[in-house]
Amino acid sequence: MDNRLQKQLTFALEIDKAKNIFRQTHLSGHGRRENDAEHSWHMAVMAYLLREHSNEEVDIAKVMLMCLLHDIVEIEAGDTYAYDAEGLKTQKERENAAKEKIYSLLPEDQKKELMSIVDEFDAYTTAEAKFAHAMDNLQPLMLNHSNDGGDWREHKVTAKQVYGRQEKTRLGSEVLYQATDEILRENIAKGSIISVP
Amino acid sequence: MDNRLQKQLTFALEIDKAKNIFRQTHLSGHGRRENDAEHSWHMAVMAYLLREHSNEEVDIAKVMLMCLLHDIVEIEAGDTYAYDAEGLKTQKERENAAKEKIYSLLPEDQKKELMSIVDEFDAYTTAEAKFAHAMDNLQPLMLNHSNDGGDWREHKVTAKQVYGRQEKTRLGSEVLYQATDEILRENIAKGSIISVP
Repeated sequence: MDNRLQKQLTFALEIDKAKNIFRQTHLSGHGRRENDAEHSWHMAVMAYLLREHSNEEVDIAKVMLMCLLHDIVEIEAGDTYAYDAEGLKTQKERENAAKEKIYSLLPEDQKKELMSIVDEFDAYTTAEAKFAHAMDNLQPLMLNHSNDGGDWREHKVTAKQVYGRQEKTRLGSEVLYQATDEILRENIAKGSIISVP
Repeated sequence: MDNRLQKQLTFALEIDKAKNIFRQTHLSGHGRRENDAEHSWHMAVMAYLLREHSNEEVDIAKVMLMCLLHDIVEIEAGDTYAYDAEGLKTQKERENAAKEKIYSLLPEDQKKELMSIVDEFDAYTTAEAKFAHAMDNLQPLMLNHSNDGGDWREHKVTAKQVYGRQEKTRLGSEVLYQATDEILRENIAKGSIISVP
């Protein structure tokens, strides 16, 4: 086996660890917590399925790649819950170091290529990044809604917090933001999300 | 929320169940059994990473989609182990019924589109299908090899059985088949795979 293929397979094996990074979101049917690999798979399928709702035309292969890769850094850096203010302060620094370490397992050209896709996602400026982020918001929202908002209740999340994150979905898709807003209103009315006047 | 989006989200929620379909393969580090969503995510990333090794040029977005979708039928039909002769007899029939049922949740045009991608994968004739199948073989092989061949030992798999499946990797990638052969020889030598003279 040549050195290049060896490096590619080392990286492929390393990212297996994403299956052991558990998120705060629970699977539908009041299931166990979801891991990063499952979340990423689900986002990528949803991106393809819902691509017609993107505000702008997107390169769907790139969107799917962003979905598949965006959480791999958490193998090293751990998952930071979207409403964990303390964790969010150090998140960027932890994740940058992790990114460098993990992608350095790859041949140099692929390290650059894959890191640039993840950096584009993180920068949140291109049409692809905005639509991939919409999936990153919508996928856990959908699961949580199906579980009667249990994750929001558990973490005592307020409407202000949840809109702070979810309103960015409109950067990627106005249509999906309208659906999101509908779901959030229902969960505020039911008391699953705390309404702060 | 309009009817079309409602159908898309119903399908998106339904496929969450793939996270509860467990395979025979164990995660690296002698971990628990892997589920279909994780396996599909891993295959899709590997397809992108290893695309230079495909025998023929491929539409990588389509290959990734095949990887992401190919096991969704198992939500209804269950997983059939690659070396389970009894299960394999009824697999096609069970999976066809399951496919029709699950994809019927989608708007008609998307039902046709997604089923046609899965059918193309199953037919094993296009360059994309062959390369996606190479990932379906290589991904569990890689994990199993990293665990000292535990899954082969547990199921008392013979060299004839494992080559029967893995030799098809060469239809998608001669390079990856050479690597596969190297790994299999090592596991036969160690006794993890039974060598039948």
